[in-house]
Amino acid sequence: MSGPAPSVAAVRVAVRRALAGVAAGDLVLVACSGGADSLALAAATAFVAPRLGLRAGGVTVDHGLQPGSADQAAEVVRVLCGLGLDPVDSVAVAVGTAGGPEGAARAARYAALDRVAGERGAAAVLLGHTRDDQAETVLLRLARGSGARSLAGMAPGSGRYLRPLLDLDRATVHAAAADMGLRPWQDPHNTDPAYARSRVRNAALPALEDALGPGIAAALARTAALLRDDADALDGWANRAAAEAGRGPGELDAVVLAGLPRAVRTRVLRRTALAVGCPAGALTAGHVAELDRLVTDWRGQAHVDLPGGRRGRRVGARIVLGQ
Amino acid sequence: MSGPAPSVAAVRVAVRRALAGVAAGDLVLVACSGGADSLALAAATAFVAPRLGLRAGGVTVDHGLQPGSADQAAEVVRVLCGLGLDPVDSVAVAVGTAGGPEGAARAARYAALDRVAGERGAAAVLLGHTRDDQAETVLLRLARGSGARSLAGMAPGSGRYLRPLLDLDRATVHAAAADMGLRPWQDPHNTDPAYARSRVRNAALPALEDALGPGIAAALARTAALLRDDADALDGWANRAAAEAGRGPGELDAVVLAGLPRAVRTRVLRRTALAVGCPAGALTAGHVAELDRLVTDWRGQAHVDLPGGRRGRRVGARIVLGQ
Repeated sequence: MSGPAPSVAAVRVAVRRALAGVAAGDLVLVACSGGADSLALAAATAFVAPRLGLRAGGVTVDHGLQPGSADQAAEVVRVLCGLGLDPVDSVAVAVGTAGGPEGAARAARYAALDRVAGERGAAAVLLGHTRDDQAETVLLRLARGSGARSLAGMAPGSGRYLRPLLDLDRATVHAAAADMGLRPWQDPHNTDPAYARSRVRNAALPALEDALGPGIAAALARTAALLRDDADALDGWANRAAAEAGRGPGELDAVVLAGLPRAVRTRVLRRTALAVGCPAGALTAGHVAELDRLVTDWRGQAHVDLPGGRRGRRVGARIVLGQ
Repeated sequence: MSGPAPSVAAVRVAVRRALAGVAAGDLVLVACSGGADSLALAAATAFVAPRLGLRAGGVTVDHGLQPGSADQAAEVVRVLCGLGLDPVDSVAVAVGTAGGPEGAARAARYAALDRVAGERGAAAVLLGHTRDDQAETVLLRLARGSGARSLAGMAPGSGRYLRPLLDLDRATVHAAAADMGLRPWQDPHNTDPAYARSRVRNAALPALEDALGPGIAAALARTAALLRDDADALDGWANRAAAEAGRGPGELDAVVLAGLPRAVRTRVLRRTALAVGCPAGALTAGHVAELDRLVTDWRGQAHVDLPGGRRGRRVGARIVLGQ
C-alpha cells in the first residue's frame, strides 16, 4: 500500500489548509486555464473538497486571444468534469486594451470569475498561482519602483479569492500534475517574449539565479510576505491617522499630519487624493511627495497639480485637496 | 564665460545639499578609493566646502588585497592633496575573513574610517555611493529574502556618514570625474565575477533592464527610499510596543503582543531575542515566526530553539526569552 507521490501530497495539503475556513456544504470553484498549475489545483481540490464536506466546481475563461481558444476551453471543461468537479462553467470574454495586453486580459478574467462565482453562489474561487508566479509579480513591480503594498504581491487570500499554492514552487506543482496523470496545456504566452511576465520568467529570474545563486524565487516570496505584514500594519495606522487628521472631505489638519512618521503621512495624503478623485494609476509617489512638502516644508508654495484635474494646496493650517 | 559642465554642477549641488547641516568651521572627510565616484566626490567637496565655511580633508584605505595597493594609496593621497584637501590620511588595514571577502573588507574599511574621523575630529565622513550602488545593494539583499529595513539599502545619512551622491546615477558621476579632468583608478574587483556585487552590476542588472526596460536602478532606489520610511515608522511603533509589553529582561506580555499587528509584534520579538544574546546574523525570520506562534497559535508547544544557545518559551501569559 503506497500513498500519493510527495508532490501530490504537498498540493493536497496546501489545498486542505486553504479550505480550512470554508463552511461545510459550501461550493468552491477552481479557476482553471488547463495549464499544469491550475490543473493540479483542480485535481487536488476534487480530491480534498468532498473529504471536508465541501462541493467543488470549476470555471475556465476563454479569452479569445488565440485561434482555437474555444476548443481549448471545451477541452478544459471536459477534463474538469472528468475530475468530478460539478458544476463546471466555460465563460467567453472580450479582452479590451486598457492597461496593456496582460492587464486587460486579467481584468476581463477576474470580471468573469466574479460573475460566475456570484451566479453559482460560490464561497471561494481558487487560483493556481505558485511561489514562482509570486516572485515574478514582485520583480515586475520592483521595476516600477513600488512601495510595500505593491511588493507584497498577490495575497494568499483576498475576498473570495484563495491561492492555495502560493507557498509551493512551480516544479512541485508541475510534478504533481504529472504524477496525477494530467496532461496540461502549454500556454504559448508563457514563452512569448512579447509579454513582460514571460521575459521575467525565462530571462530575468534565471539571470538573477546565475548572479546570486539559487533560491531567488523563494527569497522574493519571503520578502513579499514580510512586506505584506508591514503594509497591513501601516495601512491600519493610516486609517486611524486619517480619522484623526480629517477635517471634512479632502481636508486635513497639517499639524496632526506633521506629527506623523512620513510613511504614515504619505499614506494618509495618498488615500485623501484618491478619495477626491485622483485616478490611482496616475497618482505617483512624486505627486504625494509634493503634497507632503505642503506639510513639512511649507514656504508659501503654489498649489500642487494632481492627476484627474485635481489639486492640493495649503490654506492656513489645513491641507485641502480637490478641484 | 561658461559655468561648469552639467554633470559637475549636479555633483556639486548634491554635495552642497548634503553639507547643509554641518556647522561652519567643522572638518569633513571624503573617503576616497581613487575610483571615479569617490574622486568626483572629493573634487566637488574641495570646491564646495570652503564656500560653506567648512574644512575638507580626505582619507584613503589601503586594504592590502592587491599587489601594489600601497603605491595606489600613495597616489590617491597625492591626488587628494592636489585637489586642496587637507588633512589627507592613508590607512593600511588588515582584512579578516569573517562575513566573506566583501563583508570583511567593508568591516575593516569602516573601522579605519571611524578611527581617522575620531582622531581628526571630523564632523562628517562623505562616501561616494551612487544610485547604482544603492540598486545593487537592494538586489543583493532581495536575494536573501529580506524585510523592509534591509531593502531600504544604504542611508543618505547615518551617524557621521553622509552619502551625497545617492540620488545621482553612476553615469553622471563618472561624467563629472571626466569633466573635472580626473583620472580614476579602475578597481579590478568591480569586474571580477568572484564578487557577488560585480555579478549584480555586470550581469543581473543588465539582464533585468533587458527584460523590463530601462530605469531599473532608479526604480530600485525609489523602492529603497519608500521602504526606509516604512521601516522607520514601524521601528518607532515597535519601540513603543516593546516598552508597553516588556515585563523585565527577556520577558514580554503575550496579551499585549497579541493585540499588535504581526509586523510590529515580530519586530518586538526580534529585538528581544537580540537583547538576550541571539547573534543578529543567525536569527532568521523563521526563528521569529516560531516565537510568534507562542503568541498567536499557543497549543502548549515546547520551547523554541534560537541561535546562540538561547531559547524562547511561553510561561503562562508571558513570553520568556533567554538561556
